[in-house]
This record gives sequence, structure tokens and C-alpha cells, in this order.
Amino acid sequence: MALRNYQEYIDSLKKMRPNIYKFDELIEDVTTHPATRNTVEGHSKSYRLYNDPNEKEILTTTSHINGEPISRYLSLIRSPEDMYANSRMKRRLFQLTGTCTGGRCVGWTALNAMFITTYDMDEKLGTDYHPRLVNWLKDAQARDITIAGALTDPKGDRTKMPSMQDDPDMSLRIVERRPDGIVVRGAKVMICGVAAANELFILPGSGYKETDKDYAVSFVIPRDIQNLTIVETRRPSDTRETEEGFDIPNKEGGITQAYLFFEDVFIPKERVFMAGEYQFALGVVMNFIGPYRSAIGGCVAGQGDVKIGAAVLTARTNGLTSKVFNDKITQMNINNETTYAVGIAAAAMGKKHPSGAWLCDQLLANVNKVHVATLPYETSRLAQDIAGGIAETGCMPSYKDFKSAKYGHLVQKYLKAKHSAESRARAARLVEWSTIGAGVPGCMHGGGSPDGARLVIRSLSNLEDKVRFAKKLAGITEDIPEPEVPKK
Amino acid sequence: MALRNYQEYIDSLKKMRPNIYKFDELIEDVTTHPATRNTVEGHSKSYRLYNDPNEKEILTTTSHINGEPISRYLSLIRSPEDMYANSRMKRRLFQLTGTCTGGRCVGWTALNAMFITTYDMDEKLGTDYHPRLVNWLKDAQARDITIAGALTDPKGDRTKMPSMQDDPDMSLRIVERRPDGIVVRGAKVMICGVAAANELFILPGSGYKETDKDYAVSFVIPRDIQNLTIVETRRPSDTRETEEGFDIPNKEGGITQAYLFFEDVFIPKERVFMAGEYQFALGVVMNFIGPYRSAIGGCVAGQGDVKIGAAVLTARTNGLTSKVFNDKITQMNINNETTYAVGIAAAAMGKKHPSGAWLCDQLLANVNKVHVATLPYETSRLAQDIAGGIAETGCMPSYKDFKSAKYGHLVQKYLKAKHSAESRARAARLVEWSTIGAGVPGCMHGGGSPDGARLVIRSLSNLEDKVRFAKKLAGITEDIPEPEVPKK
Amino acid sequence: MALRNYQEYIDSLKKMRPNIYKFDELIEDVTTHPATRNTVEGHSKSYRLYNDPNEKEILTTTSHINGEPISRYLSLIRSPEDMYANSRMKRRLFQLTGTCTGGRCVGWTALNAMFITTYDMDEKLGTDYHPRLVNWLKDAQARDITIAGALTDPKGDRTKMPSMQDDPDMSLRIVERRPDGIVVRGAKVMICGVAAANELFILPGSGYKETDKDYAVSFVIPRDIQNLTIVETRRPSDTRETEEGFDIPNKEGGITQAYLFFEDVFIPKERVFMAGEYQFALGVVMNFIGPYRSAIGGCVAGQGDVKIGAAVLTARTNGLTSKVFNDKITQMNINNETTYAVGIAAAAMGKKHPSGAWLCDQLLANVNKVHVATLPYETSRLAQDIAGGIAETGCMPSYKDFKSAKYGHLVQKYLKAKHSAESRARAARLVEWSTIGAGVPGCMHGGGSPDGARLVIRSLSNLEDKVRFAKKLAGITEDIPEPEVPKK
Amino acid sequence: MALRNYQEYIDSLKKMRPNIYKFDELIEDVTTHPATRNTVEGHSKSYRLYNDPNEKEILTTTSHINGEPISRYLSLIRSPEDMYANSRMKRRLFQLTGTCTGGRCVGWTALNAMFITTYDMDEKLGTDYHPRLVNWLKDAQARDITIAGALTDPKGDRTKMPSMQDDPDMSLRIVERRPDGIVVRGAKVMICGVAAANELFILPGSGYKETDKDYAVSFVIPRDIQNLTIVETRRPSDTRETEEGFDIPNKEGGITQAYLFFEDVFIPKERVFMAGEYQFALGVVMNFIGPYRSAIGGCVAGQGDVKIGAAVLTARTNGLTSKVFNDKITQMNINNETTYAVGIAAAAMGKKHPSGAWLCDQLLANVNKVHVATLPYETSRLAQDIAGGIAETGCMPSYKDFKSAKYGHLVQKYLKAKHSAESRARAARLVEWSTIGAGVPGCMHGGGSPDGARLVIRSLSNLEDKVRFAKKLAGITEDIPEPEVPKK
Repeated sequence: MALRNYQEYIDSLKKMRPNIYKFDELIEDVTTHPATRNTVEGHSKSYRLYNDPNEKEILTTTSHINGEPISRYLSLIRSPEDMYANSRMKRRLFQLTGTCTGGRCVGWTALNAMFITTYDMDEKLGTDYHPRLVNWLKDAQARDITIAGALTDPKGDRTKMPSMQDDPDMSLRIVERRPDGIVVRGAKVMICGVAAANELFILPGSGYKETDKDYAVSFVIPRDIQNLTIVETRRPSDTRETEEGFDIPNKEGGITQAYLFFEDVFIPKERVFMAGEYQFALGVVMNFIGPYRSAIGGCVAGQGDVKIGAAVLTARTNGLTSKVFNDKITQMNINNETTYAVGIAAAAMGKKHPSGAWLCDQLLANVNKVHVATLPYETSRLAQDIAGGIAETGCMPSYKDFKSAKYGHLVQKYLKAKHSAESRARAARLVEWSTIGAGVPGCMHGGGSPDGARLVIRSLSNLEDKVRFAKKLAGITEDIPEPEVPKK
Repeated sequence: MALRNYQEYIDSLKKMRPNIYKFDELIEDVTTHPATRNTVEGHSKSYRLYNDPNEKEILTTTSHINGEPISRYLSLIRSPEDMYANSRMKRRLFQLTGTCTGGRCVGWTALNAMFITTYDMDEKLGTDYHPRLVNWLKDAQARDITIAGALTDPKGDRTKMPSMQDDPDMSLRIVERRPDGIVVRGAKVMICGVAAANELFILPGSGYKETDKDYAVSFVIPRDIQNLTIVETRRPSDTRETEEGFDIPNKEGGITQAYLFFEDVFIPKERVFMAGEYQFALGVVMNFIGPYRSAIGGCVAGQGDVKIGAAVLTARTNGLTSKVFNDKITQMNINNETTYAVGIAAAAMGKKHPSGAWLCDQLLANVNKVHVATLPYETSRLAQDIAGGIAETGCMPSYKDFKSAKYGHLVQKYLKAKHSAESRARAARLVEWSTIGAGVPGCMHGGGSPDGARLVIRSLSNLEDKVRFAKKLAGITEDIPEPEVPKK
Repeated sequence: MALRNYQEYIDSLKKMRPNIYKFDELIEDVTTHPATRNTVEGHSKSYRLYNDPNEKEILTTTSHINGEPISRYLSLIRSPEDMYANSRMKRRLFQLTGTCTGGRCVGWTALNAMFITTYDMDEKLGTDYHPRLVNWLKDAQARDITIAGALTDPKGDRTKMPSMQDDPDMSLRIVERRPDGIVVRGAKVMICGVAAANELFILPGSGYKETDKDYAVSFVIPRDIQNLTIVETRRPSDTRETEEGFDIPNKEGGITQAYLFFEDVFIPKERVFMAGEYQFALGVVMNFIGPYRSAIGGCVAGQGDVKIGAAVLTARTNGLTSKVFNDKITQMNINNETTYAVGIAAAAMGKKHPSGAWLCDQLLANVNKVHVATLPYETSRLAQDIAGGIAETGCMPSYKDFKSAKYGHLVQKYLKAKHSAESRARAARLVEWSTIGAGVPGCMHGGGSPDGARLVIRSLSNLEDKVRFAKKLAGITEDIPEPEVPKK
Repeated sequence: MALRNYQEYIDSLKKMRPNIYKFDELIEDVTTHPATRNTVEGHSKSYRLYNDPNEKEILTTTSHINGEPISRYLSLIRSPEDMYANSRMKRRLFQLTGTCTGGRCVGWTALNAMFITTYDMDEKLGTDYHPRLVNWLKDAQARDITIAGALTDPKGDRTKMPSMQDDPDMSLRIVERRPDGIVVRGAKVMICGVAAANELFILPGSGYKETDKDYAVSFVIPRDIQNLTIVETRRPSDTRETEEGFDIPNKEGGITQAYLFFEDVFIPKERVFMAGEYQFALGVVMNFIGPYRSAIGGCVAGQGDVKIGAAVLTARTNGLTSKVFNDKITQMNINNETTYAVGIAAAAMGKKHPSGAWLCDQLLANVNKVHVATLPYETSRLAQDIAGGIAETGCMPSYKDFKSAKYGHLVQKYLKAKHSAESRARAARLVEWSTIGAGVPGCMHGGGSPDGARLVIRSLSNLEDKVRFAKKLAGITEDIPEPEVPKK
């Protein structure tokens, strides 16, 4: 085997044990249930597009383990070019699905992060995590599976360390260590694309001290493993997905974000990649955010491309030329290209890790995170500005009303403008969906908060260097140290 | 009679003919149906608060007609102080209801606009519209009714005048003139608060030429008049209103935005305030946007106050002090106070109209419109930034899942932080609701688009004056006229 | 006497003892010396314009003491309308002089601040400062003098209180108290318009404790008092003022900012308005910043008006129509009107003080201060954008080169565009002067820093109120207090 | 020969014919005259630093012609890595000189642009421009000369083509073609670093039609060629350069911007690289702006680094810790890294030209140009915000006053804060110099205007692609073309 086709992917999902819930109901088949079918469809795109030679080039690469053709989502990122392809692939998939296929990208980034950290741990501690990971990866490549990644713990009271919480389960932890594996308890929350995944790659949080060592844990599991319960969260306007019609116009993709509850789940040893090495947990997070916060610039750019297209489309159905909005469209393009470009630059300015992995520049990656938490909001505002009142909050009667036997003809008569009522409604709904509806991904806090990124920027931007050369330029010879902060 | 109490208001709505639909169903009782009860509740606040001496002062005033105590929403705006009270009242009602009670404010602004224009028409044309309006207003004050206002026409192809459209009904028009009144056909769209209104005040659009004179029409009607069909539009996450629980946490208020279809509705003469005087239609719009775009600064400020409160509340349930977010909160406050203040200034810089009405400064009112289309987006972004991932897109399991017999205990266990799971979820849902949910009003395009406001700013900001004094300062004596635009 | 004419004003300056220096030279006559004549010319505008009926209305008012016609700059601000006139007057004077005439406005604001505080002190402490001030003011009105105001102390090490500095003179202080007056030592720095003033009104700093009581001092003095030495500071491109030609094109106005050195200056008792009442010093500052930070919105708007005019003028000399820059000009107008409007609103939302003075709303006044520290920078950038490369940094040969016998013809040949080389150069120089030259006033830190304003905003914006109504809207009943900040 | 040392460079400048003027005076020796010595010092840095192994790596490379070690400024840009080095070198030189060394970078970019265009012309037209250029370049590398580049024509009336101007000399043109060369007349304006250059590389403007073919001209000349007269322009506060002391604190670098007047200058054939091929002129400009608008992100980042250092240094002399300003400093860092990163990305996303040159991505390069015209203004504002009133407009007495025998002790006494008066003054002057003084380079319009960049962005951002995939996502099948713009 190697590259699966669409049907093989769908079949693999159908075969799994149902353990995902939404609205207090078990989802028997994620590929057909309205709450999950759109995200499965979105994630399936990469399998479908293997047949398209243009897209295949970007979606596949060769295994660094055995040289076989593999999905890029299962590859080791070894060079700037691999990262450029990462950004391009994400931008492209946003353009084709309209939204996030996070179930692939987070898992991929997670396995790359642990590839590096397992190498470092083995070097320093003499453990054998790295070969375990490589073995699993080789197999995963052969099976061409989809892997979601899980990072965020519930955390509880933010002012207390995991081990100091009233309830010690507020971050995922090892509750038992056995010769053949570990047992874990806790939760991971806001996890993207789980419903479309075959396996889940779990990362530890960070900021751990020795007392928190049971929280330093990483492993990979089948999504339908015993004692794992998954609950999908609400998203804006998500019940529309259960309705007929075009109030959610896009069927090409969708997002899910899940809460994973681990009620003493057993993980066999060969799938465990960290189990107590708390001093390496921060490294995992840094190895994760480097490529993640770089390539998310591609995601946001693709999302912005959709907003531009949807806004102009709506304006045209109103009879308005895009020329009227040139300045706004240009600003939207600048926003898109900025997040895309800063991510590319973070890759270009990176460096090689001894394991063979490529490390993105952290300063630029984190600058990008701040842009990703800011610029898309302006792009959304401009899309709503261009597309007008019916798009701003989707201010139109529902599809049911559109089709009403009693007054649907009136709805349609008055929604018609330069183009048909349906085209106009669909275009405006796409603006709504992507700016204030179910298509809005959680980019601001996804993969960490912008304030966290600002902290990284502060620590990496070498303030004292800048003060030093300013001092030289100013011709100052006196010593001017940082003053002590006065006590209050 | 005069000031009604809450029950009288509710009873008046219950007594009306059901003619409002949503999801292809007739709403039998707007005061109890989930699609409308929240907006009725929000609109009822002003009736409820007559009993509160602090609030009564801002909510009531005296009639300029007969000196009786009346709702401010039925008063003539005669002074800057009346406008300040307008801004304050709107800000206060946003704080108390969390969102827009547009069914009162648009109707009020509409009657003030037509108060002025009917005066002007009578002066110029010798018509008797003004006494008709005053008579109706006196009666409306005595009945203490709620009045929604309707301005926006469907418009059809934006590049064509109303009379040049393929379908002449794309703007509301007179199709028959009778000795005792007129018959109108067409629609008004995106009309706020109709479900909570007793009557509807209809304004004409603008930009009409002589051939469009049948479109220059203004009148007031009972909401349940014959041949009027009303369809409520969707809003983000609106079906949550039909659900049990706190996924929409706020029951104190809500918005509706309706499409009104006029299928040859007869309006008796004494309720008609314009019928063909196309040359006065632009004046109506200007008289409307003056106070509307001023006082909307108060709305947006109140909405921003809620976002600040909701975001800080969420942070505190996480265990985080608001001090961490001082800079962001200060920026949110600056945004709020800016829209509030520019509206106040537009009132302060206004002038008296011969009819006794107060005209706000158009330049400042329109500057405010641009701020209203921009600053709340930043305020929403900052609220989501402070409140974290669960608020950004409301990334939590639904209320049904929260209460699930099977795994609700897990949802609750892991949603708990510094405070209870429920408090945390409610706070985060309020951020979601007010920034990306059903509480987001259409402030950007409501009452006209920001690009329209920019055109007004351009026409009123006296560019040539500025060039003239720059020229004097620069000591230039040569004539420097505006160059001709080169032909392409 | 009462309203002086231009010549009387000039003569009064000529008669004073020369005690102002620049570039290590004594300025014998401030009305003719190149370093000060432009600011004198600017300040003289208000005397000149008494003859213009349109301008007189805004520049004069009546004395609240004796009903005589007086300069508005010597009046008590008693109503919102007085504040509107303040904003309008400042905007107008910027339009006519191109820059700040701070020697009038700071002095005026200072006397109003002390009018209030002396009233409060007399009420609380039984002192007789208020009648002293009123007596002096009555006389000042009769003499129609120009008064500069002085607030900023050198301060020394920012982390130490005045009385804890290594050098106790780092803030102005009383070094001797005599029966007939006080002796002061220290400095006031960055004081605007001193060269154009007849008298100087000195205010205390703030944040004083009992040990700092000698620093709580306020008084008014002739500018040429014994033992006072004044040194004018540099400003960008200030030596151009000493050159012939149009490299500074504007001769209608100019700024100066002085350092005042008090070497044991004796102040007679009747001119002393505070001498040790440290607990009232903060009140002075608040009474000062209320009207100051409100009306500075008018200054900044007038400055922005000049930038718009100058930029468009330059574009036209290049052959470009302003239509190309519509969006940029509209944004500049929005910036101008915003600072103007927020100041007007701070006045409108103010309240009466028992002394008869009008107190502006502090929250809005301080919001405006932040805008004043931000928006003009964008307006300057847009002016440079419109006006092009020759304006951005004034990238043209000097006037001397323009007139060179050797190659001046070449300079002129190639500077000519749609209009003459001289008109084009003058227009571009005006953009340079007002955005990166000697015309840029220190609005960001003048009258206090934006960070200080942010502190006031934070303290006045009632966070807990906002949390309280958000909590009610969210239906939360649990107590959610501000968490304790964790100790590090 | 190959890499020259500092003295050789200085000597080469001393040997040249004096033909540069400022203030109507001939500059006899550019290396010592106050108007030019700072820029010579700045440009000499690259020669000086050959001795520093760390810096040498970035400043030198090998010739693609003969493999010899050469200055990077004389190299062909052949790869993304060459462009990264370009950005890094420019950032580094800004850090070391405080400002622009444009006399190297523009010349370098110009020769690279013509390297490509001469190749294209020879391919298409069979001309021999490319070998001419390579011959000259080989020689220039051997001589290790400094080359300024000249692009901007005076242009005259912006609405007319060069050949349609009243005065045909408003753009540089060929007035005579001889067998051994051409004679040119006209001017190039706002040319950076001419005084520090050995030779000048002249590029054509763009937008030419056949009638403008005499304007399509490119060549390289010694700076002191016969019939070339050079006049240096003013910059903000430039006369301070002629003064003693630290009012311009930085002696490590400086800028000049010159007007070049060509009065029938003869250019020998072997130094002419375009002479009439108008259809290739646009290509030159595009080949120029690609690397220029990419690498200018490095310049602006380095400039921003200086502003950060200078602002923090000033705050520390005031006794304030940088921690107070963390948010502002982080924003400044984000601005710096953004322009740096977008330039890096433009390089990374580029492609190879058949000539061997590397072509940067135009879309990203032009996005960067817009950032370069915007972000530094915010960075300057924040620097002034941090550094306080004495930095905002440099509000301190002059150096002469600082040293005054009469009152210099007072100036120094009161300028002292946490650190000495001199250190504080120097630090604040550096903020002034770099934000509103002689150190501000003309980055907004240098190398073309941001509006020109916006046009490129619009043309390259594939609007119809975006509309197409939005249409697919929205499920719209109807054809929705761009409407015709209605005629007025």
C-alpha cells in the first residue's frame, strides 16, 4: 500500500468504533453524519487530489525513511522547501475547502515536533523514544493514515501548576506506569479534525517542573481506542449543517473541534514518546510552534483568498464592479500575502537540527502568530464592507423561507439583483460563513495565544544588542544599565 | 392613557394579527415564540424601567405638543440635550439587553426625519403633510406605542435607478392613488425589531429623479395591516434561540431583522406623509442619518461595554486578573468612548431647524458612521483575545452535552477552572454571542454603508478652504486650480 | 484700556528686559530676532484679528468679573459653549498660523485651573488665594496681556520623588518664605510661547506627598522678572528660520519651547496662588488637563487641515487632481474631525464647578489625548504620501541653490511641473515643515504623556460596572471577583 | 587589486573633479566637507569592515565572472541566499551607520536590473548590450568602486508623457547619437549617496511609447564626468551637520540626496546599456523594484532596530526600565521583523532568470513596499512615545547653549536625570535624528511610491482565481462576470 484513494480513506473511517458525540447523540458514521461529514469531505480532498498531477506535486513527497512516495502530511520536514510546500499546501486546501483541515496539519506538526524531541531525549538521556517514533511513522506512511494532533489541556485555574490544581486531572497525566505501557487520565480540548482522523498524536503542555513530571507525556493512539470519549463542540451557526439547502453554502469542507476525555486509557509502550521527561516538554512546544506558526500564515492567506472571492462575487451579483472596491481588495491582498510571506521567511531563515529536521526561525514564526491573530479580522471586516448588509450578518430569510410555498416567490423576487436570487444568496452566505459563521476557524488561539507569541518575540529580539549599537551611534560612553524596577 | 406598563405592551402585541414568519412557519404569538421573544423582551425594557426612577429620567420626556409625559422614543428631538439623552439611552439599553432594540430607535429617528421634511414640504409646496404627522404623533404618544422604522429597499441591480429596473417593484412604490389614500407595492428589507413593534414607519430611499416619483413615499402603518407579509431573517447561531439552556446565555434581549412584503397595501390618506415629492427624498435620508449616525455611537459604546465586561468575566473564571489585559481593555474603552463622543459632538455642533427639530452636524455624524463600521471589530477581536480559545468561536460542547447523562460530568469536570463550569461557559458564551453570535447587530451597513458616509464626509469637509489657507501659509500667489482629470 | 491692538502688543514686548537666549546669544528684541519673530507673529494674530468681525466673535468674550469685552484667552471658561469656542479658536489659529500659539492657550488653561483650585483651597483651608487670583486676573484683562503657562519640571530621576532627588532643585520649589512673598528655585522646561508672552503662569507638578510640600507652588510673574533666565530649545530645521527665502515657507507663525531657570526668584505675595498645599497639587493638574486635553483636539484638527491643504496643493502643482487621493484625504478628514469631536464631547459632557468654572469630562478628555498622540502621525504620513518624494523629507535643493547664479536656472527648470518651480517648492516645503519640520508641535507629550492619559482612562472607565451587567446578561449568579495577582 | 581598504576608497574620492554643490558653494573635498563627510563615512563602513571576519562574510562574495573575491555590492544576485545576504547586509549597515547607505544599494540593484534587461534585449534584438555590461562590471569589480544608482526623472507635469511635455528635458533623454556614443540632456533627481560614489548607474523611467524612445536610456558614468553638475538637497535639520557638538549625535553615517543636471553629457558607447529600446524600459523598472523593494525591508528593519535602541536608551537615562514599555517595544519589533520577513519571502519565492540572475517575487516585493511606507511611521511614533518630550521634537537647548559659559551649567544641571546630562541629550537627539531629523531616509517614495506598489499588487493578485474558487465553494453555477462600469 502507500497512497490511499478517497474510498479507502472513507472506508477506514467507517470501520472505526463510534466514540464521537454531539448534542448528546452518538455519531454512528462520521462520513455521513451532518455534524462531521463536511470536515471528512474537506480532509478527504488530499486523497482525492492525488489524481490531479498539479496538486499531487504539492500534496506528496518521498519518505526520508525509505524513499517511498508518501503524503506530505506524513513526512519529515527537512528543508525550507518542505516548509514552503507546507504553506502552499495549506493555502491551497483552504482555497479548495474554504476552511481548516486541521486534522491533518496539527498531527503532522506534532509528529515533526516529537521527531526532534525524541532525538534530543535519546541523545541526552539514552532513551529509545526516537526509533519507536520512526517505526510508528514508517508504518503510518505505509498505511497513509490521517492523524489529528492534540495539544491543549483544560488547565483549570490558570494561576496554578498542573500538580497544584484542586483536581489533578486538569492536565492529561500518567496515572499508572506498567512494563508494557502507561495509563493516562485527563482531557485534551478544542482538538481540530478528530472526526476525520484515523489516529491522534498527543503532545504534552509546557512550563512543567519536576512535580509535574507525570504531565510530560506524548503518545499516539487510534481515534477509537478504548476508554476515550470524544465530544464535538458547537461552532457558530453549526446547526445549519443539519439543515437542507444553502444556508451553509459550502459542502466542500468544514471544521470540527473536539473535547477528548481519557478515562484511564492504556497506551502500549511502542506508541509512547515521552513519559515523565518534564525538562523536554517546553522543547516540544517550541518545536511545534516553529513550523505551526509559520505555516498557519498559509492557512490564513487561503482563508483570506476565499473572503476576497466571496465578497467580490456578492458585489457582482448586486451589479457592482470590483473596481469600486480596489483599495479594500488591495488591503485584503496585503493582509493575506503578509501572513503567507512571514511564514515563508520563518522557514527560509531556519536551520537544520541534528536529527535531520528543519527548524523554523522562532522570532519570525511568532511575529506571524500575532499577525494571524489580527489581520484576518480586518480582512473579514472588509469582506463584509464590500458584500453589503445581506452578508454582514447574513441578513436574509432562511433556505426554508426561500423555498416556502406560501411566500418563497416573494423572497426570491426581492433577493434578485443583477443575478438570480439563489446565486446572490449563496454568495452572501459564503461571506457570512467565512467571516461570522461556521467557517471561521479559531486561528487566534489555535496553537497558542498571541500573548504567548509576544512573550517569545520579546525574549528573542535581542533588546540589549539594539541598545548597544544605539549607544555607539549616539556616542555615549557612560554605562547605562537597565534601572531596577522600583518596589511598590 | 400615556405611559404603558410592561403588561399593556405585551398585551398589545398579543392582540395583533399574526403576519410574521420564520422557517416557513407562522409565528402565532411574538411574545412567546423563541424566534421573537428575546427581541420583545429587549424592547419591553423601556416599559419595565418606567418604574425605576433613575432610568425613567432618561427614558421619558415631555411632549412638545401637549406637555404630557411621554416615552422619549415618541418625542421630537429639539435640543442637543435631547440628543445626548438619545445616545445615553441607547448605550444604557445595550448594557441592559446586550444588543440592539432597533424597533424603537429607527422608528423614532424616522418620525423625526419626516417631522422636518413634512414641514419643509408644506412650506415649499403648500401641502398639509406636517399637521397629519403631528396628529398621528399626538395619538401615538397617547397610546405609547412601539414603532419600528423601515428604510432599505431591495434595490435590485445597483447600477439602475428604481424606475429603470427590469422589475419596477425592486423599490417600494405607489401603484395607485385614491382620494382616500394610496396603494403601495414592493418590499423593505433588513428591518429591525418589527416583531416587537405596534406600528411601522416607512421612509423613502433617495437619489430619485422625476421618473422615480412613485418611489418617493412615506407613511405609517399598523404592523399587522392587510396584505403585509413579514419574514424574519436568519442571524448567526439563531437556531440556538429555539434550544433549552445557555448556549445563548442572554435572555434579556435579542435582535430580529425582517423582510416586509407589501402586496398592494392600502394606506389611508391621514397616515401618508410623502407621495411623489421625489425632490424631498434625499432630505429625508439626510434628516434620518443625522441623528441616527450620531446616536449609534451610543449603541456601539454600550455593545462594547458588554464585550469588555464579558471578556473580563471569562478571564476571571479562568483565574486571570484583568490587570494582565490592561492595555487591551484600555483600547476597548477608547474605542467605545470614541464612537460615543463623536456622536455627542455631532449633537453639540448641530443647529435648530425652523420646525423646532434639532439637526445634528452631518460631517461629524458621518465620521462617526465610519468609526462604527470599524472600531467594534477591533473591540470584538480584543474581547476574544482576552477571553481565550473557548470564547473565540465558542469552542465548547453544547448545553445538551453539558447536561448529558452519559458524559456531562466529564464536560463539566474539564470546563471548570477558577470558577464553576457553568459560570465559565456562560461567560464565554456571552463573548461568543456578542462578537460572533446572535448578538452581533448589523452596525456596519445598518442605516447605510460606510462608503456612503465617506461620500458625505468628502462633500462636507471643505477641501478648497483647506487648500486656500495652506496656499496663504506657503506664500503662494500663483493660481493653482484643480487639474482636469486626463481622459483615458 | 481693554483690547489692545497689534502695535500695542508688539511695543509691550519690545519694552521688556531681554532675558531670552538661543545658541548662546541674548535675544535683544523678540519681535525681530529670527528665532522668535515667527512665534510673536503667530501670537499677534489674535490682536490683529480683533478688527475682523468674523474672527472677533470667536476671539473675544465678556469678563465674568466686570462684563467688559476681553480676550477669550483671559476669560473664565463657564459653559460648554465657552469650551466649544476654545476648540474652534484653536483650530482657527492653527489654520491661520500653521502651528501652535501655545503661549496663549497654556497660560489661559493654567489660570482656569488655578481659578478652581484656589476656590477649593479657600473653601477647605480658609486661605485667600482665590481673591488674589481674581484681582490679578481683572488687572490682566484690563491690560489684555499674553500669558504663557508653565507646568513641566525637569524631574531628574523618574523613579524618585522630588524631595528624594540627589539634587532637590529638579522640580521647582520654594526655598524661602517671607512675609511679603516667596523665593523659588529650579526650572520649568519645554515651555511654549514664552518669547511672545508678557507674563508666565506657573503651575505645580503632581504626585506630591507631605515631604514634597515646598514643590506645591503656583504663581504668576512678568516674563522679564529678575533672576529668571530663559533658553529657547532647538526644533527640527530651526536654523532655517535664520535664513533668507522660503525653505521655511510660512512666516505667519512659529513655535518656541523654552527652558526657564529660576535662580532664587522673589514672587510677591499677591501673585502667589499656592505655596505648600501639596494635597491640592493633583487637583491642579486634573483641572488643567480637563480643558487642555479637550481643546487640543481643535489644535490637532487645525494642524491636520493645513496638512490636507498643503498636500493637495503640492499634488496639484505636480499636475495631479485631488480625486486620485480621495480615500487618503477622507481618512485625514476623519482623523481631524475625530480629535475635534471628542474634545467637543468632553466639553458637552462636563459639569459646573461651584466656583462658576466649567469642568470637562475627564474620561473623554483623556481618550482624546491618546488620539492626539496617534492620529496626527497617520495624517502626516498620508500628507507625505500624497505630496510625493519632494515633500517626504523636503528633498529639494535649498533656497540658496534655487537662486544660485551658477546653476539656479537648472534647479528651477527641473523643479517646474504643472506650476512654477517656486509654487511647487513652497507647497512641498509646507508639507515638510508641518510633518517633519519646524512646524511640528510636541503634541504627543505636550500637557502630559499618552500613557498618563491611559491611566486616567483606566481609573475612570468603571470596569466593575461593565463586569456587573455582563454577569447579569450571562445569567451568572456565582460570585466572580478579581483574582489575586500571583506573587512571583 | 580587488577589495580596497578604507584609505584607498577615501583617496579615490579625493582625486575626483569637484562637481557637487550645496548652499550655492562648491564642495572641494567630499570626504571632509560637513555636508557630505557623514555619508562618506557611512559608505566607507563596508570597506572598513573587510577586516572584521564576521562582517566580511556578509559584505563580500565571489564574482560569477571570474571567481575573485568581490564586494557583494558589485555582485550578480544569483540565488535566494544572495538576496537574504542583501537584506541582512542592509539591516546590518543601518545598525552600524544609523541610516541609509543608498549610494551602494541603488547602484547595485541598478546593475543587476540592467544585467537582466541587457540579456533580454540581446536575445530579442540581437544587440550587444549584455557583454558591454559584463565587461564594465568585471572592471568595476576589479577596481572595487562604489556606485550610486539614478532612477527618478523630474517628470514635469505628471499628466503628460515625456515627449509631450512643454519642456522635452523633463526626463533624461538622448539628444545626439554618435558612432562612438550618445549625448544626453536632462536631470535625475533625489539621488542617494552620489557624494560617496565613484560612478553613477543611470536607469530609464518607464511607461514609454515609441515617441518617447529617446528617453529609454541607460548608462554608467564617473561621478565627475564633464558637463554633469550635482546639487545636494536639504534634509531635515541638515545645517546641524555644519555645527560642532552632538545636536547630530551620530557621526557614523548620514544620507545625501542629489539633483544631477546633465548638460549635454557624452557617454562612450561601451558604457551605454540602452539607447532607444523603449519597449524594454518597463522591464528595467520591474527588474529593479523586485530586489529593491524586497531588500528595503532589511533597511527599514535596521532603522527600526536603531529606534528601539535609542528609545530604550533615553528611557533608561530618565530612570525608567524598558519593562514599562514592553508592549510598545514588542510592536516595534513586530514592525521591523515584518518588513524584513516579507522581503526574505519575496526572495525565497523568486525564480531564476535565463541570464543567471535571481528574480524576486514581485507580488511579495510590492506588498513589502506598502509596509515600508507605513510601519516605520508607527515605529517612529512609538520611539517618541517611549523616549518622552525631549525626544519627540528634540526639545532641548542646543549644544552651544549646553556649553554656554553664561548658563551652560544650568542647562546641564536640569538635563541630568538618572544619568548625565550629556548621555541623556545624546540619546534623545538620536531618537530625534532617526524619527524627525536628518537620519530619516525617504523610504516611502524612494524607489517608487506606495500607490505604484498597490497597482502592481492589484495586477498580480489574481482576483479572478479567487472569485472562481469562491464560486465553486458557494455552489454557484450561474455565470457572474464583472459588470460593466456604468458611464456617467
